[in-house]
Amino acid sequence: MASLSNIKPNIGVFTDPKHNLWLDEAQPSVADIQSGAALEKGEVVVEIRSTGICGSDVHFWHAGRIGPMIVEDKHVLGHESAGEIIAVHSSVTHLKPGDRVAIEPGIPCHTCAPCLVGRYNGCERVLFRSTPPVPGLLRRYITHPAVWCHKLPPSLSFEDGALLEPLSVALAAVERANLRLGDAALICGAGPIGLATLLCARAAGAHPLVITDLDAGRLAFAESLAPGRVRALRVAPGDAPEALAARVVEAMGGTEPDVALECTGAEASIGAAIQAVRFGGTVFVVGVGKNEMQFPFMRLSTREVDLRFQYRYANTWPKAIRLVEAGLLSDIRKFVTHRFPIEDAVRAFETSADVKSGAIKVQITNL
Amino acid sequence: MASLSNIKPNIGVFTDPKHNLWLDEAQPSVADIQSGAALEKGEVVVEIRSTGICGSDVHFWHAGRIGPMIVEDKHVLGHESAGEIIAVHSSVTHLKPGDRVAIEPGIPCHTCAPCLVGRYNGCERVLFRSTPPVPGLLRRYITHPAVWCHKLPPSLSFEDGALLEPLSVALAAVERANLRLGDAALICGAGPIGLATLLCARAAGAHPLVITDLDAGRLAFAESLAPGRVRALRVAPGDAPEALAARVVEAMGGTEPDVALECTGAEASIGAAIQAVRFGGTVFVVGVGKNEMQFPFMRLSTREVDLRFQYRYANTWPKAIRLVEAGLLSDIRKFVTHRFPIEDAVRAFETSADVKSGAIKVQITNL
Amino acid sequence: MASLSNIKPNIGVFTDPKHNLWLDEAQPSVADIQSGAALEKGEVVVEIRSTGICGSDVHFWHAGRIGPMIVEDKHVLGHESAGEIIAVHSSVTHLKPGDRVAIEPGIPCHTCAPCLVGRYNGCERVLFRSTPPVPGLLRRYITHPAVWCHKLPPSLSFEDGALLEPLSVALAAVERANLRLGDAALICGAGPIGLATLLCARAAGAHPLVITDLDAGRLAFAESLAPGRVRALRVAPGDAPEALAARVVEAMGGTEPDVALECTGAEASIGAAIQAVRFGGTVFVVGVGKNEMQFPFMRLSTREVDLRFQYRYANTWPKAIRLVEAGLLSDIRKFVTHRFPIEDAVRAFETSADVKSGAIKVQITNL
Amino acid sequence: MASLSNIKPNIGVFTDPKHNLWLDEAQPSVADIQSGAALEKGEVVVEIRSTGICGSDVHFWHAGRIGPMIVEDKHVLGHESAGEIIAVHSSVTHLKPGDRVAIEPGIPCHTCAPCLVGRYNGCERVLFRSTPPVPGLLRRYITHPAVWCHKLPPSLSFEDGALLEPLSVALAAVERANLRLGDAALICGAGPIGLATLLCARAAGAHPLVITDLDAGRLAFAESLAPGRVRALRVAPGDAPEALAARVVEAMGGTEPDVALECTGAEASIGAAIQAVRFGGTVFVVGVGKNEMQFPFMRLSTREVDLRFQYRYANTWPKAIRLVEAGLLSDIRKFVTHRFPIEDAVRAFETSADVKSGAIKVQITNL
Repeated sequence: MASLSNIKPNIGVFTDPKHNLWLDEAQPSVADIQSGAALEKGEVVVEIRSTGICGSDVHFWHAGRIGPMIVEDKHVLGHESAGEIIAVHSSVTHLKPGDRVAIEPGIPCHTCAPCLVGRYNGCERVLFRSTPPVPGLLRRYITHPAVWCHKLPPSLSFEDGALLEPLSVALAAVERANLRLGDAALICGAGPIGLATLLCARAAGAHPLVITDLDAGRLAFAESLAPGRVRALRVAPGDAPEALAARVVEAMGGTEPDVALECTGAEASIGAAIQAVRFGGTVFVVGVGKNEMQFPFMRLSTREVDLRFQYRYANTWPKAIRLVEAGLLSDIRKFVTHRFPIEDAVRAFETSADVKSGAIKVQITNL
Repeated sequence: MASLSNIKPNIGVFTDPKHNLWLDEAQPSVADIQSGAALEKGEVVVEIRSTGICGSDVHFWHAGRIGPMIVEDKHVLGHESAGEIIAVHSSVTHLKPGDRVAIEPGIPCHTCAPCLVGRYNGCERVLFRSTPPVPGLLRRYITHPAVWCHKLPPSLSFEDGALLEPLSVALAAVERANLRLGDAALICGAGPIGLATLLCARAAGAHPLVITDLDAGRLAFAESLAPGRVRALRVAPGDAPEALAARVVEAMGGTEPDVALECTGAEASIGAAIQAVRFGGTVFVVGVGKNEMQFPFMRLSTREVDLRFQYRYANTWPKAIRLVEAGLLSDIRKFVTHRFPIEDAVRAFETSADVKSGAIKVQITNL
Repeated sequence: MASLSNIKPNIGVFTDPKHNLWLDEAQPSVADIQSGAALEKGEVVVEIRSTGICGSDVHFWHAGRIGPMIVEDKHVLGHESAGEIIAVHSSVTHLKPGDRVAIEPGIPCHTCAPCLVGRYNGCERVLFRSTPPVPGLLRRYITHPAVWCHKLPPSLSFEDGALLEPLSVALAAVERANLRLGDAALICGAGPIGLATLLCARAAGAHPLVITDLDAGRLAFAESLAPGRVRALRVAPGDAPEALAARVVEAMGGTEPDVALECTGAEASIGAAIQAVRFGGTVFVVGVGKNEMQFPFMRLSTREVDLRFQYRYANTWPKAIRLVEAGLLSDIRKFVTHRFPIEDAVRAFETSADVKSGAIKVQITNL
Repeated sequence: MASLSNIKPNIGVFTDPKHNLWLDEAQPSVADIQSGAALEKGEVVVEIRSTGICGSDVHFWHAGRIGPMIVEDKHVLGHESAGEIIAVHSSVTHLKPGDRVAIEPGIPCHTCAPCLVGRYNGCERVLFRSTPPVPGLLRRYITHPAVWCHKLPPSLSFEDGALLEPLSVALAAVERANLRLGDAALICGAGPIGLATLLCARAAGAHPLVITDLDAGRLAFAESLAPGRVRALRVAPGDAPEALAARVVEAMGGTEPDVALECTGAEASIGAAIQAVRFGGTVFVVGVGKNEMQFPFMRLSTREVDLRFQYRYANTWPKAIRLVEAGLLSDIRKFVTHRFPIEDAVRAFETSADVKSGAIKVQITNL
């Protein structure tokens, strides 16, 4: 078990506006951790043990920005983490050193309008770990509010705990899209979020299920996650939305999807989803993409298609833990294809960024 | 395959205000079937092949009434049926002789306010097969509107088709109760409707799942339907609602149910469900019972518990067929414990009415 | 009172693929009306007394098509009508000659999936009066299903009755957009639908209320409908969406709209609405426009804006009648700026099509 | 303007388990206010200027308890207050001395499950001012979290500010009951909450509107609040629910209510509401009453009536302020029938408790 006495120097994985990626000394310092100076009311110190690399981490490294969020200084990446509590502020009563926790990376204000109505992902003053200028979780040690550290049951490993963040995106989407038992569901995209969405849709009893992607390998993996339950459709960049929609309906045995869960953020894919769903159906977009996008407006209008969107998540960790523990979403474990110690973080990022690596989810571990 | 030329005399299972139960000549007549005189616009003739006995059928026989619905004359029972089309009116285009269908027993008017808003189970002018004075389906041959005959896929037998009616009650309840992936769900009662509700709740990803009943045998059967997923709690008639609620929460590992699906209609069971659910939770009542009932009003009020109810079903057959076919609800097949030919209908009813028979669902078949 | 004995020749207002507009002999014939041959089961004959001209009528005349709906032959226009029953089929019991009715112009099948779930505006087999090739209501006499003839109370004139159709579009939008007491609402566009939407939003207690339009005259009329309750914002074709959104929020005293009701169908206006609404807000589009349209995708995504659409209406007439009668929506009467007898239909259409006429709603009357 | 230098001794209105009611020295002390010792992070000191007496205040005085909430020591009453900020903790930035505020009396924890989903009225650790043992607001000076002090616009007086609390109950009910434009609404009870609910229902466009009460004077007052919009029905203690329901439907011109807003908590009144609403309608209970209550179970079941409940409120003050300011709910001002200085608090309570006083809302003022 970790303890305050034998902690290592704190290091983190940094990028900067010049697209460097390197390991460097990180906050809080060992001295501040040991003295307790690192902690404010309600906070804990967590020794991070596993952290997944998200596409957005790679994007901040390579592109230096995602829309209005810009890397303007040296910046710690990472927001998919789990670890062990090694110190708690005296005000914290429900966690103690030795507890294993998954970290919810956003810290909302609790008092703005979105917070007070329960949609804290829209908090006007949120500090989201790894969104510049808030440093991320790819460090050995972090401080974090106890309320956003979710205790892991014995059956969930740190690796599992770190997977709860991408799973939360999928779970939030399936919940807000109001996906229900017996709904015909189309999932666009078989990347980590699309695959996690497939797991959630399967667990929620959606049927029939069709998933689309450009990549045959990912589709094969998708089919292996829900054998006999999901039909995989390979698409090509130039496919016409109407033609793709027709293939989706055919793969569903003539049923138009009630819900499309769009996890690519690609204009053509969203267009196909809009063409495919039934009158009154929903296209629920999880993927992000271009600032401006062209949609088939009259199809949306004459079919009363609801076009809706997910931004991060709220209130998902407790449910995600419960469902992985119960086995309903435990296949999320199969997503981890590569693991690297934090000292090899650069290789980890290179693997994650390389489409030929076959990586689904790359995790960085602290031993 | 059935045909118009070799049909048998039409017989049906009748009861009357004096609680007799017997087989007798039924409508339509063979002559009217063969001449086509039996059919009106939009109708078909179905040779009934399997019919389940519902608790309400036994109740009409034994008690002569259910609330305001009174057996005032000789009356055909039965509303859980599937069969084969043997004739269609010339106006019917989507069904043909030889098609195998499950029968939705209510015939709504399509034009009253509840019909026009999609809640046709509340139709002000509904003709519901087996609710006096509308004759039921326990006959060899019936006429029925084609729109309420749902075509069975090859993988569903007539027996399966007849099970879609009780399954529809459960499916409607789970849908209207808004049960979702990861919801903690309590199911009260392990009779046919409670068990079907358990199947639906499992398929919808509810977790944790607890089911209660007075009978150990039924609870064992319930556990066998969702091994490792459902906890069975045996209750006794005198249990205090608060104590039972505490046992439910304990069985859920400390989680208060989000939703309780009440399938007994017993005052004490509903009371326990109200005590158990979380702030803002739902007690969704499927079971029927006494005209007047006592509830813990202040608990409902200070916990903002939604107390809601299911009456029959609307728009469930297509989804039910899809889900049985896909294997998500195919365990409904295990419910059929006894089968009798229509000639032995009295024995079938006696078995269904006898708690010592171990019967879950008794079906009557026409060979 | 109208009667079968003194009916005039049936005439209607026709257009064709060559953009002609003329009066011509229409169906049903006087002989068929008088003999009863015109009527099928459930139908009535209505002597049309008032009919409003809709923008879509002008569009069919001038452009010959709206999206996939194409004028391919001579075609009767008009779908906003009220009149008097002059004959009923023997099967009709709730209407009788002399009854004054507003006509709901769509005739759904009642049995397809959208119909059965209460969204009959999505009926797969709907016959919508005036959508080619279904002839419209701009005739002296029509036959129509009794269920779609809504009886007018004494306080509603035929002119009022004909206004219920555009009012239904607005009412459906406000209802499906879930506009509520105290919601901050933006209405884009002060044409007949935008103005009707303003009336509904005011009656529903939305506040603050802002309406936008290009035309100062229409905005002045809008302000006169809700004095002290609505702020009018004049916009110009080149306005940047972000700048317009900022003006909207400023006009609301710093509040971001909960709901924007978009009644123009113009890309820039929809873009401004998306920029303006709060996190989790709704942009509800009533207006129709280009087949393909560009939207600020990342704003939709990071703000979880729901982009939703209205197509026609379902179940609105009874509510609309109730609300006009009670005075909550009676200002709809102020919309009628011009009236012409059917013999002057061409002038009526020219007035409706002429933006300089100052027309809001032009009605055609049969005396 | 109030200031820290010229503050009076702090006094409050106390009751105790022996049903005494008296003025006594209250916390915080003048010294602690002036030194700043009274304030914790995020808090302000408010000089209370107006406080309404609620039925629950009288009940705590007379009965010593409401359900599980028991007066076990000397206890300050009052939770309907507005006042002026006279000091702020250095951490508070959006309020300053001199600001006029309405006080939301519940202080939730912000981090339990109900808080995080936006239903903070169900907070597991709430401190609700005036619910024993948390002292109420009937003092000259209180400390309170700034986030629960809602700034009043110039057009709202302190008296108006104090009325926002009962108005919030009504607003929460109308919102959660999903009352909409054109819904037929029954309001049971014309006490302060019933009358405030009437104001909200009128402003939300509900129609027709019927209100019931035992007292002719209150019904006359109700009718004066919505002239021509509401029908008043006088009821008597022995009225049969079915008969009363029939009178309600008749008063609505044959329409069954979509929603009943029950503000009496009386068993017979709730029963009548259940009998009255349409298939699929809602009986939304705001009133509190006996711990156990008898309901017409089979009517609830066969009509799919939703029986739902309101407990306090969440997120209502901003909307209430907006709507009073805009004039939509400003008639709430007419509710204040009696005003007493705090020195006459005992007389104020006696007036409030005396049904013959004609009091609707009694307020206590600090000058």
